[in-house]
Amino acid sequence: MQNGQIQTAVVGVSGYAGMELARLLLHHPRLAEAPPLFVGRVEEGRESVPLVSMHPQLANNHGSPEIKMLPFSWELLEERGVNVLLLATPHEQSRSWVPEAIARGLRVVDLSGAWRLDEEINRSVYKFVDEDPERAAELQQESVYGMPELHREKIGRARLVANPGCYATSIILALKPLIAREWVNTEHGIICDAKSGVSGAGKLPTAKTHFMYAADNLSAYGVYSHRHTGELLEQLHLDADEITFTPHLLPIPRGILSTIYVTFWEPKTAGQVNHCYQKFFAGSPMVRYFGSQLPQIQYSVRTNYCDIGFQLSPDGRRGVIVSCLDNLLKGAAGQAVQNMNLMCGWNESEGLV
Amino acid sequence: MQNGQIQTAVVGVSGYAGMELARLLLHHPRLAEAPPLFVGRVEEGRESVPLVSMHPQLANNHGSPEIKMLPFSWELLEERGVNVLLLATPHEQSRSWVPEAIARGLRVVDLSGAWRLDEEINRSVYKFVDEDPERAAELQQESVYGMPELHREKIGRARLVANPGCYATSIILALKPLIAREWVNTEHGIICDAKSGVSGAGKLPTAKTHFMYAADNLSAYGVYSHRHTGELLEQLHLDADEITFTPHLLPIPRGILSTIYVTFWEPKTAGQVNHCYQKFFAGSPMVRYFGSQLPQIQYSVRTNYCDIGFQLSPDGRRGVIVSCLDNLLKGAAGQAVQNMNLMCGWNESEGLV
Amino acid sequence: MQNGQIQTAVVGVSGYAGMELARLLLHHPRLAEAPPLFVGRVEEGRESVPLVSMHPQLANNHGSPEIKMLPFSWELLEERGVNVLLLATPHEQSRSWVPEAIARGLRVVDLSGAWRLDEEINRSVYKFVDEDPERAAELQQESVYGMPELHREKIGRARLVANPGCYATSIILALKPLIAREWVNTEHGIICDAKSGVSGAGKLPTAKTHFMYAADNLSAYGVYSHRHTGELLEQLHLDADEITFTPHLLPIPRGILSTIYVTFWEPKTAGQVNHCYQKFFAGSPMVRYFGSQLPQIQYSVRTNYCDIGFQLSPDGRRGVIVSCLDNLLKGAAGQAVQNMNLMCGWNESEGLV
Amino acid sequence: MQNGQIQTAVVGVSGYAGMELARLLLHHPRLAEAPPLFVGRVEEGRESVPLVSMHPQLANNHGSPEIKMLPFSWELLEERGVNVLLLATPHEQSRSWVPEAIARGLRVVDLSGAWRLDEEINRSVYKFVDEDPERAAELQQESVYGMPELHREKIGRARLVANPGCYATSIILALKPLIAREWVNTEHGIICDAKSGVSGAGKLPTAKTHFMYAADNLSAYGVYSHRHTGELLEQLHLDADEITFTPHLLPIPRGILSTIYVTFWEPKTAGQVNHCYQKFFAGSPMVRYFGSQLPQIQYSVRTNYCDIGFQLSPDGRRGVIVSCLDNLLKGAAGQAVQNMNLMCGWNESEGLV
Repeated sequence: MQNGQIQTAVVGVSGYAGMELARLLLHHPRLAEAPPLFVGRVEEGRESVPLVSMHPQLANNHGSPEIKMLPFSWELLEERGVNVLLLATPHEQSRSWVPEAIARGLRVVDLSGAWRLDEEINRSVYKFVDEDPERAAELQQESVYGMPELHREKIGRARLVANPGCYATSIILALKPLIAREWVNTEHGIICDAKSGVSGAGKLPTAKTHFMYAADNLSAYGVYSHRHTGELLEQLHLDADEITFTPHLLPIPRGILSTIYVTFWEPKTAGQVNHCYQKFFAGSPMVRYFGSQLPQIQYSVRTNYCDIGFQLSPDGRRGVIVSCLDNLLKGAAGQAVQNMNLMCGWNESEGLV
Repeated sequence: MQNGQIQTAVVGVSGYAGMELARLLLHHPRLAEAPPLFVGRVEEGRESVPLVSMHPQLANNHGSPEIKMLPFSWELLEERGVNVLLLATPHEQSRSWVPEAIARGLRVVDLSGAWRLDEEINRSVYKFVDEDPERAAELQQESVYGMPELHREKIGRARLVANPGCYATSIILALKPLIAREWVNTEHGIICDAKSGVSGAGKLPTAKTHFMYAADNLSAYGVYSHRHTGELLEQLHLDADEITFTPHLLPIPRGILSTIYVTFWEPKTAGQVNHCYQKFFAGSPMVRYFGSQLPQIQYSVRTNYCDIGFQLSPDGRRGVIVSCLDNLLKGAAGQAVQNMNLMCGWNESEGLV
Repeated sequence: MQNGQIQTAVVGVSGYAGMELARLLLHHPRLAEAPPLFVGRVEEGRESVPLVSMHPQLANNHGSPEIKMLPFSWELLEERGVNVLLLATPHEQSRSWVPEAIARGLRVVDLSGAWRLDEEINRSVYKFVDEDPERAAELQQESVYGMPELHREKIGRARLVANPGCYATSIILALKPLIAREWVNTEHGIICDAKSGVSGAGKLPTAKTHFMYAADNLSAYGVYSHRHTGELLEQLHLDADEITFTPHLLPIPRGILSTIYVTFWEPKTAGQVNHCYQKFFAGSPMVRYFGSQLPQIQYSVRTNYCDIGFQLSPDGRRGVIVSCLDNLLKGAAGQAVQNMNLMCGWNESEGLV
Repeated sequence: MQNGQIQTAVVGVSGYAGMELARLLLHHPRLAEAPPLFVGRVEEGRESVPLVSMHPQLANNHGSPEIKMLPFSWELLEERGVNVLLLATPHEQSRSWVPEAIARGLRVVDLSGAWRLDEEINRSVYKFVDEDPERAAELQQESVYGMPELHREKIGRARLVANPGCYATSIILALKPLIAREWVNTEHGIICDAKSGVSGAGKLPTAKTHFMYAADNLSAYGVYSHRHTGELLEQLHLDADEITFTPHLLPIPRGILSTIYVTFWEPKTAGQVNHCYQKFFAGSPMVRYFGSQLPQIQYSVRTNYCDIGFQLSPDGRRGVIVSCLDNLLKGAAGQAVQNMNLMCGWNESEGLV
């Protein structure tokens, strides 16, 4: 595929991550010749839906043809020679469609939570009912967790990439370098206090996404029960009682800041910690390590960067990690493009900066 | 009634205006002996709903008994000796319930748009279907537009007070003093550019009340068609082509600011204009006139004041009026309490400052 | 003093806490006869400054005389018979003025950080230079930490009450019940991840209070170095390495939410924890305990409540406490009035709900 | 110059418009070979200031060399072969530097208000004191108002382009098509009610840019006196009493929405109005005309588009125009790049979409 023609298709462009995905792919330099195909649910009797009717901000005035979303069908994908499929669909839909997509020879980046979790106990929060459990188990086995900083090579070869959760991305990238070195005393517990903008809650209007609920407010939710927890456990090889993850709803449109607290087995110096992070992310263009200057949400919003900073306690035995990213980009659509780039043999950050 | 015992009841406490009404009445000094009765729709099989389950911010920790909402019935109201009914119900429900309430001898303050408009053409936007059109016409005739600054005495005697719309309150109070003097050249058109916080759009989660829609945004809506326009025409005695009213949705929880543009028949001085406003509002405790220091939304939010400022053009022929209020208080629940005070013969601002 | 006439004076009404203090005292039922005296820095040559020129939202239209701030002098306080002084002044000014005030027989509630800390090591962050170090040491010894839920009786008798810091109030109230029982394994470290609205940063325009810095953002600051830490250590009897406190700047005007993480020596049940909190706060009208329903910032903003909720980990060995309050009320001016009430022998919550 | 090598330099990169200008130029496809030179005030003794120290969000992790701001000197510009200078400097500085720049053969895009106004009476609000008034008058005569939709060809040939004000851009683009046709009854007055995000007020922390002032608020300011008024009068050929412009400060970081009210001499149809706008902007890639679907601030924020919508009154005699843009892009840095593109003979929208 690295030499052949890439033809991408996106399913599920109506949500926030879908819109960002559309925007990124429409400006992607490697897709200029073969623009992405947008497919989805089109009202009976209509031939297509202009993207601009869902997302007026995507309008242009440059004489380029209007971008349209066509009614989804496997035949259409085949007809158009699609070989890379990006799914910004609900968890259940992704769980149900992926086996067919793989069977038809497509390579898939799935933005949902459907294929991220290997352990059934972690996956159980999604309550999937697989039509062909055996096939699903095989695919689950095969699927690669789409975090390039951890699984770059596997992603390059993968047929099925499960794009990580937004909170999970922010936390795993912050902790992995220290945990990989076995510096962290997990018996003392790792605390992940994370805060996300409202776009993370999705586009469906609910009591919790009402402006009056979120504005001028802050609320914790999903304590000891958020479904991104499973990703933390599996990717960081932790037990459930070694990590506490508390998400909060911030009164801002987008961005995540995670404040993470660790205890070390042995005292460390700032120099040791900086070196640890710098080494770990040496080949990773989409992580910016700020050292003791802590990143803020504003720095990474509307970029594909995950920004990480670290402050050591005076006695060197404890540390506070601050990790920021844009939940719709590095936490969703941007990381999906990063994965797509790797699958196509392109530069990881192409079309992202 | 001015000497007898007042027993109030509130229907419709679950919305934003309902919550403010509950808060105001629970702290109202004249209702300390006979607290308001809260009634509404209670799930089948339950005896009551604690107010605090709908509005956690109303919780107290003072040993006072928990406030409950009881299932509505006319019998309950009679049993409890209710004689003043405050309706924070949808327009259709108010239109349908008020005839029964009046027939049962209750005096009513209705916060909806059901009884505000005398002219059928203005009322038509609400598409009411009256069960007994003749009776409805009589009641419509009898109902008093609940703006104390314009109709103080009639309100004091009224059986049915139609509490004004939030935008309408802000605009009518700003224009009435100048129009009453016949200073305004209405042929040149009056422009009312009004901006409201999101609580004005109600508690139902919709695409437009989603945080992602309202935050970091501003949008105009209902141009030439907003249903508060009829109130402007009737209270200011204007024709539809003499006034343009454009509401906008502000990214804030509450507050309205209206910027209003007038042309004078004859040039005026700032002194003349100030005198006109000061005289008009001399006996009106809930209007603050700021002169050429323009009020801001922050000044009046969480108060029952309507704040008004005025700037004259250098040639004295044109003027900009800025009028601010809290859409849930002077624009809804606060003005309702002001009306209730007048109906009960109490000080107009009792329980409001 | 409990029987004599109370005459209050407020110094420092121009800031945010000062404005709230003015608002509370002007509506305080026990001060209706003898309204508070406002004093402060008045421009040379002027006799007074109307409060409304600093805070337009305090304007009224009720014929009551305009409230003015007079130029501060000890003579004026004496002349007016002031016996209770509330200081909303900068730390250094409070440190320097209090000895004189006490010497003149005034009782003082000081809202600054000047007299909160007994240990010199904790106080050192403020870099005070005392004119009379011996006298300062005596007063420091005598001063009472103004948290009624912990020191109600001492406050009632105190000459000098040091009103607590906003973050400290939120965290100490959340932790004290559990720590007093010796349930918390402090060796595992207590994590306090706190988030505050911008009013906590004061009224002086700085790079960090610029709208463009704070809006759509979240940032951590003062990691391992915030000066409220000393209050936590002293009031909770902890060592510096037993607690980590990370403040964050929220893009909202007011409100604090602290998310606090504890490990227990022995597993607990939700019932045990609930009982512990309910018992501890039984006589405390200004704390609302929500059990496992976590409070949100909106619930307590514009009230004097501290709201506390608790969620237990599945294994009963860890807990997440969420504690919310309004930084300008329970975190400053409201708690000051609560302390003043106790000093005057009045009901603790008078004028506060 | 259209064939020669373009070397750009930017003065004044520390502000909000400066940062956007830096971002746009660093990604501009025609400047990939010869990146812009950043110059400005550098602290004595330092050789340069990394851009990232002023704007952390500009950090990259791609191995590209760090971008630095060098100390300004005319010699440096000459040495580096700069031929296009972009000034994001204060008005007075631009007024004083431009004569020297032109004398040295540089072509200039000036983002300040220094050279926008031909009439002395309009310019007087800036209170400029020219060193060489004659030379200044000549340059003023020569300078071109940098609105490509009105002066595309002149801009292409200009030595000095005065980049328009943000409010002025939004209003002039909305009105020009109708006024050019002489449809608008200016005797009835044109009302421009404009609302801007806080970045328009600049980066200096002041009482009005404090988060507590702007958040949850809306305020009108500069009524009858805002200095963008002169641009409206000159570009639309109006007298001061024919147009009223009222700016408001919105609680959002960026974006302008102007609601503009016109009366027509003769009734128009929606078709006529749409045709008028579409024809006027036919060759203008950076204006999107939305017809009766009114644009919102969100649509154009972080783009270089000016979005325009129009609603006709039922009698066809009046109209409401809504015009939106990003005050830092089409209202500042984006339009500057658009002008630079034209001056260099490039596609007008290059590097902007």
